[in-house]
Amino acid sequence: MNRTPRTTLKRLPKRGSYDRNVINQILDEGFICHVGFVSDGQPIVIPTGYARVEDELIIHGSQASRMLRNVGKGIQVCVTVTLIDGLVLARSAFHHSMNYRSVVILGNASVVEDREEKIGALLALSEHMIPGRWKDVREPNEAELQQTTVLSLPITEASAKIRTGPPLDDEGDYDLPVWAGVIPLRMVADEPIPDPRLPSEITTPSYVSDYDRRSK
Amino acid sequence: MNRTPRTTLKRLPKRGSYDRNVINQILDEGFICHVGFVSDGQPIVIPTGYARVEDELIIHGSQASRMLRNVGKGIQVCVTVTLIDGLVLARSAFHHSMNYRSVVILGNASVVEDREEKIGALLALSEHMIPGRWKDVREPNEAELQQTTVLSLPITEASAKIRTGPPLDDEGDYDLPVWAGVIPLRMVADEPIPDPRLPSEITTPSYVSDYDRRSK
Repeated sequence: MNRTPRTTLKRLPKRGSYDRNVINQILDEGFICHVGFVSDGQPIVIPTGYARVEDELIIHGSQASRMLRNVGKGIQVCVTVTLIDGLVLARSAFHHSMNYRSVVILGNASVVEDREEKIGALLALSEHMIPGRWKDVREPNEAELQQTTVLSLPITEASAKIRTGPPLDDEGDYDLPVWAGVIPLRMVADEPIPDPRLPSEITTPSYVSDYDRRSK
Repeated sequence: MNRTPRTTLKRLPKRGSYDRNVINQILDEGFICHVGFVSDGQPIVIPTGYARVEDELIIHGSQASRMLRNVGKGIQVCVTVTLIDGLVLARSAFHHSMNYRSVVILGNASVVEDREEKIGALLALSEHMIPGRWKDVREPNEAELQQTTVLSLPITEASAKIRTGPPLDDEGDYDLPVWAGVIPLRMVADEPIPDPRLPSEITTPSYVSDYDRRSK
């Protein structure tokens, strides 16, 4: 992992990490990233799904997407993945915080042109979002492949930032009669909602009924 | 709400909205935004907490934060809020999607300098993240106020994008024997974790034990 001046954390460096395993773990648990790019001088930030394939971050979308057309030109991008783990309640307003894990990747994306590579990337995206799904679905046909743009961003200039644990109050505030601690937050899956047009004899696969991001 | 060429959705316009109530509802349910700005030509995307105060989006942080120093200069920013509501499983790989609600705001932020306004903004941030908390905490002292930068971004050039409902498959795919539907996703709060240094006689307030984003 290249630690560059641009990804070197300036503040609270104890919260920063350049460890590839830490970065990969965050990327593999999340599935939504925010892609930042510049268009006519204006920064634009767009949410989208992603997958990690070894040292590459893969995103995809319609060929007609303004974001993908811009980013596919190889311009500089920033991709940020954020997992929120909890609200941190201190005794003072000032020391309230959040527990979170985030990754920032800087670089230049490129279009995946090779047909086999493209299908492999779409499979990876599907399996990253819903492990076990790909074997059941109708795979993309030629027209769909043409309509889909797949971009790859090398994960070389990247850093993670993590906050965990209880609040850290000023020593003099610990005597205040105020509740302090953490409200843990996490994303859960509720009961699946079958498509109204789904025949009743089709049973719910376990990758749907047991969906859990944390089991990644 | 000003609909400008920059915020006008180019694709799938039925998913877009410029309705102020729709935008406000998304901003009020979320609490993490991704702030995009340009630094030396490089787009940077940083997650942070926020609150909406009428027609302004408020963010804050340490005076030493690189993001706040940059954005506080009044440069162009893009602030994006994304709520993930579910995974949409179609019969074809191509029509898989996500249910989500997102807001994109473009504009220029400014530093809140006025002391009373700044305290009001910090109160709004606290009450947006944890309604009911502010009355219990030690309020910021002068040194803490000085160390805190509060930025305000007018919510004028903004758009929402929403996808809801079941998958939309190609007509010919509805006969495939594949489960299709939605896996609803939401953020939940788990059992609060008291600070190890919290005296046992301090009880858990209901705004902690009953924390629920959706009740916003």
